[in-house]
Amino acid sequence: MTNSKTALEKGRDVVARLNPGLEGILSEKYDALVPGFAESLTEWAYGRHYARPGLDLKTRQLCTISALTVLGGQTAPQLKVNINHSLAAGATRTEIIEAIWQMAVYGGLPAAINGLNAAQEQFDEIDAKAA
Amino acid sequence: MTNSKTALEKGRDVVARLNPGLEGILSEKYDALVPGFAESLTEWAYGRHYARPGLDLKTRQLCTISALTVLGGQTAPQLKVNINHSLAAGATRTEIIEAIWQMAVYGGLPAAINGLNAAQEQFDEIDAKAA
Amino acid sequence: MTNSKTALEKGRDVVARLNPGLEGILSEKYDALVPGFAESLTEWAYGRHYARPGLDLKTRQLCTISALTVLGGQTAPQLKVNINHSLAAGATRTEIIEAIWQMAVYGGLPAAINGLNAAQEQFDEIDAKAA
Amino acid sequence: MTNSKTALEKGRDVVARLNPGLEGILSEKYDALVPGFAESLTEWAYGRHYARPGLDLKTRQLCTISALTVLGGQTAPQLKVNINHSLAAGATRTEIIEAIWQMAVYGGLPAAINGLNAAQEQFDEIDAKAA
Amino acid sequence: MTNSKTALEKGRDVVARLNPGLEGILSEKYDALVPGFAESLTEWAYGRHYARPGLDLKTRQLCTISALTVLGGQTAPQLKVNINHSLAAGATRTEIIEAIWQMAVYGGLPAAINGLNAAQEQFDEIDAKAA
Amino acid sequence: MTNSKTALEKGRDVVARLNPGLEGILSEKYDALVPGFAESLTEWAYGRHYARPGLDLKTRQLCTISALTVLGGQTAPQLKVNINHSLAAGATRTEIIEAIWQMAVYGGLPAAINGLNAAQEQFDEIDAKAA
Repeated sequence: MTNSKTALEKGRDVVARLNPGLEGILSEKYDALVPGFAESLTEWAYGRHYARPGLDLKTRQLCTISALTVLGGQTAPQLKVNINHSLAAGATRTEIIEAIWQMAVYGGLPAAINGLNAAQEQFDEIDAKAA
Repeated sequence: MTNSKTALEKGRDVVARLNPGLEGILSEKYDALVPGFAESLTEWAYGRHYARPGLDLKTRQLCTISALTVLGGQTAPQLKVNINHSLAAGATRTEIIEAIWQMAVYGGLPAAINGLNAAQEQFDEIDAKAA
Repeated sequence: MTNSKTALEKGRDVVARLNPGLEGILSEKYDALVPGFAESLTEWAYGRHYARPGLDLKTRQLCTISALTVLGGQTAPQLKVNINHSLAAGATRTEIIEAIWQMAVYGGLPAAINGLNAAQEQFDEIDAKAA
Repeated sequence: MTNSKTALEKGRDVVARLNPGLEGILSEKYDALVPGFAESLTEWAYGRHYARPGLDLKTRQLCTISALTVLGGQTAPQLKVNINHSLAAGATRTEIIEAIWQMAVYGGLPAAINGLNAAQEQFDEIDAKAA
Repeated sequence: MTNSKTALEKGRDVVARLNPGLEGILSEKYDALVPGFAESLTEWAYGRHYARPGLDLKTRQLCTISALTVLGGQTAPQLKVNINHSLAAGATRTEIIEAIWQMAVYGGLPAAINGLNAAQEQFDEIDAKAA
Repeated sequence: MTNSKTALEKGRDVVARLNPGLEGILSEKYDALVPGFAESLTEWAYGRHYARPGLDLKTRQLCTISALTVLGGQTAPQLKVNINHSLAAGATRTEIIEAIWQMAVYGGLPAAINGLNAAQEQFDEIDAKAA
């Protein structure tokens, strides 16, 4: 078991599974502005949340997709990153779309439609890279 | 397959599984104020969303739990109803708590803590009824 | 015409029509905490917005009802005050309810249901006073 | 009267008045991603809300303008569509602008200013098409 | 300097200054529900944020007051805790009230008024304890 | 003392210090759309809030930075203007960044990251102009 690992180490294990280069990218982009940014985010988001037992990683990712959808269109960049993470965690495109569209009930139609637009753009980008 | 059913009928099938008396309760509480309320909600939320294929009901419910958490403390009544629905859909208390607490990353600590408080109250109420 | 009046004076004219005692109540409740509160709110909200030409007062009030609904359940106290103002501006209860319920499309079902609950409570309170 | 029509049929009647091609556009853009999207949106938003009696269509549209304004700048695309719908329902540009600017009181200045920016862009686009 | 301390240790130093019993209270209230809750919150909020150099603790607290105000009335419990923390960090009641009331510009009047109400209740509670 | 000045005059004094050309720019951009816009904003935001005693201008600005951060990425234009105002009020870039990043605790990581992105863009723009 990973219980003897620090939260930061556990977070890095999750990141290795979802998005191996993430901490480096974040470090390069933000650490000059906010010293310690990449480490802090890895520890908190991935070590202190995604690494927790009690809920499987794929469901965690779909919950994140729904939450980012209701939080509104300004979270489109984070939604796109987490669509990639959800696919890496084993979710299908259909499951992702359903987790977005259902949010029309809770966050309203504009939030859900903005979420669908972000998903469509991200799927298109993935397909373009694969082509 | 249920494809020949109307959205309203499909919604009623889902409600029968999650919370059999719900449409009647909503009708009694809101239909005088908003004619057609209970039917409209059943059709839209349950028939047009939860009844869709592509994502299992338990995961849909956990996505709802996360969304209601980031939408803030004013959704506590809806969060409590959906905690019951999540349990009915097969989620464990731990899975529900994890779907709430992870939202500290996306909606901030106050939203997550308010969500935990609502969950604790709902669990306590369930236990009190069971005692 | 009121063009030669200050924004504060125009605001007081609107308040006289919607809720004559409002500035005094606000002054007593908040001016010790925030010096100038009641005057500032009257000038800004009523003098600089509701007093403007170009949209009739009743429609302005119904727009406010919808906005307070999508802003979430934490605005219930303001929603109740503005239900009274809407009635004073000539809106019917039905029009108010419709302005709330329609928000299920834009702000999601929890916001709309919380709005309906606040309206029902306010109508009940008005009826209790009238009885 | 349309009472014997289904919610979907009533919604299509409203869409025919506000934006005749809308269901087709939505179908083409979203139905592959979310099977049933255009029909579901037409039924819920237009059939279950805008088609209701009790509040005239123009006021309903102005309420929507205000709500989309306070929901923040991420709803700019929806605000622009609903500016068109409001004009189709008989609202003037001035009434639309007033319904936006008043929201500075309830949603804060940034939301109101973002709403004004979206309106100005939409008016410019309408004028450019008319030229 | 505290540079060799872990984020958790730095967080505990800040908590010792602002609210010495906080971690224990949080542990008792939430750790059974969310194993590791109190430690995780202390590490993230206080160790990874409030303990950072570059902005003094009093200003950090007033920034938090403003943020909780615009986040809406559902954050009243957190606002009250942070009013206590702001006083402990050296802010005056007037500074706290000003940090709340200014938010009428950015988050709208309802959010600001709900914030003032929470502050008044907290000041009254402090005075009642001191009496 | 400025007590004998009107709110509008006091607002203009603050604007002269933070951003001398602001009222003219706002007037040119919005007064045709919303008659009286620039004067009304100057009176309310700067005269009725920033000009108040009880909290220094620099801290007021940092509170605004934090509030705009938690209000979400749609406030990026306002955040950039207020970064300039904060610098004019004597805040350092580091203080501004800390006021943004701390908001990860209260508004969630997406809001904080969007805020950091806006700040980086604004700093780059300032540096490009200075070059």
